[in-house]
Amino acid sequence: MKTLIVYAHPEPRSFNAALRDVARDELQAQGHAVEVSDLYAMKFKPAIDREDFSSCYDSENFNVSLEQRHAHAHNGLSPDIRVELEKLQSADLLILQFPLWWFGMPAILKGWIDRVFISGAVYGRSAIFDKGRLKGKRALVCVTTGAPAQAFGPESLNGEMLSLLAPLHQGVLGFTGMTVLPPFVAHHVPYAGPDGRAVLLAQYRAYLNKIDALQPLPMPRLADHPGWSEDGMSPKAQ
Amino acid sequence: MKTLIVYAHPEPRSFNAALRDVARDELQAQGHAVEVSDLYAMKFKPAIDREDFSSCYDSENFNVSLEQRHAHAHNGLSPDIRVELEKLQSADLLILQFPLWWFGMPAILKGWIDRVFISGAVYGRSAIFDKGRLKGKRALVCVTTGAPAQAFGPESLNGEMLSLLAPLHQGVLGFTGMTVLPPFVAHHVPYAGPDGRAVLLAQYRAYLNKIDALQPLPMPRLADHPGWSEDGMSPKAQ
Repeated sequence: MKTLIVYAHPEPRSFNAALRDVARDELQAQGHAVEVSDLYAMKFKPAIDREDFSSCYDSENFNVSLEQRHAHAHNGLSPDIRVELEKLQSADLLILQFPLWWFGMPAILKGWIDRVFISGAVYGRSAIFDKGRLKGKRALVCVTTGAPAQAFGPESLNGEMLSLLAPLHQGVLGFTGMTVLPPFVAHHVPYAGPDGRAVLLAQYRAYLNKIDALQPLPMPRLADHPGWSEDGMSPKAQ
Repeated sequence: MKTLIVYAHPEPRSFNAALRDVARDELQAQGHAVEVSDLYAMKFKPAIDREDFSSCYDSENFNVSLEQRHAHAHNGLSPDIRVELEKLQSADLLILQFPLWWFGMPAILKGWIDRVFISGAVYGRSAIFDKGRLKGKRALVCVTTGAPAQAFGPESLNGEMLSLLAPLHQGVLGFTGMTVLPPFVAHHVPYAGPDGRAVLLAQYRAYLNKIDALQPLPMPRLADHPGWSEDGMSPKAQ
């Protein structure tokens, strides 16, 4: 089994780094080969542009979806994208490790998805959800928050955590066919103190120790949406 | 009245650019001064790091929220952030113009929010939602999609558009006190053809022409959440 941890935090001593290390150690102890993409350390480029491609589909009008599809088919993806895509394709388990910033992913991690989740490679015409190209892989979001758990409860000011993560869980991970495990959320991290942090790390280790027993999040099945058609589902607009 | 349009698309001939121009023209005709932040043209840096600050709160541990708050209080924000923050603070209306990529903002726009929405400047201790620092401003999301409207309906494969945009609408714009107008969504853009695109542009112009009559989206009020406390609401986790 191979695990890819995509880690998005600028501070090597952050609690996110500690969570990353717990996952690496626990999964290695289970016999996984674990690879880490440390996006900040790699100075990963977040914004899609022409430099993503050595190929060119249309020099007059830069359409991201069409250029990605063309580049994927003609070996025109830039090396930094190709490397990450290969890591993703060879992984059995993907862990996204990040702090919740403005109720979503840090920009550098959104950029990893924008640039690496290539049309043709991770999804295709009818190849989404239970037909997605990443079918058979599992995915897991591990996120830290500045607020306590009840701040993400029903009727809360923030809204519910699963709703906030739905565009990522369903729109990215489930969309491409991955089995999406329930997220591990480390709440109230800035106020947890050393003991509280140790408890959270132990909880994450225990969570990963029983990872095979986790019940995946429900995802749509294509068969339940007979009205779906190819042009209905491009996840990159012009 | 001043309008700031934050535009996030790499292609100057894109439909997003056409929507941006419609907004600029229509709002100027209404007497607004319109400013555009063209994030790709500006090569706006998306990822928060130490280079965002000339000041330093803690050289040992880079905590984004604490560094932002300190830098804001001590004139330590980098010039590119300061310029954008001043544009935001002086605007009466903020328009975010972007294509829906993976059911959210392009990374470069998420980075604009991560870096410019500074603790202390746009929100504070008890200064969120109806007490937020950006109170009195209006905000409007104009987004393009590759899929038809029904692909974002109830029970759809994609989920409902207002749910997908909730982290932005409520978690960023409403959180900081802005009055959030209903989004303008240009659906199915890659398949609209020249006539369909002309219709969408005319609809957007008409929408902006009646902007003062639009009913804002409902937002939480602090008074309805008496259990709220300062440490419950940091929107940037460690």
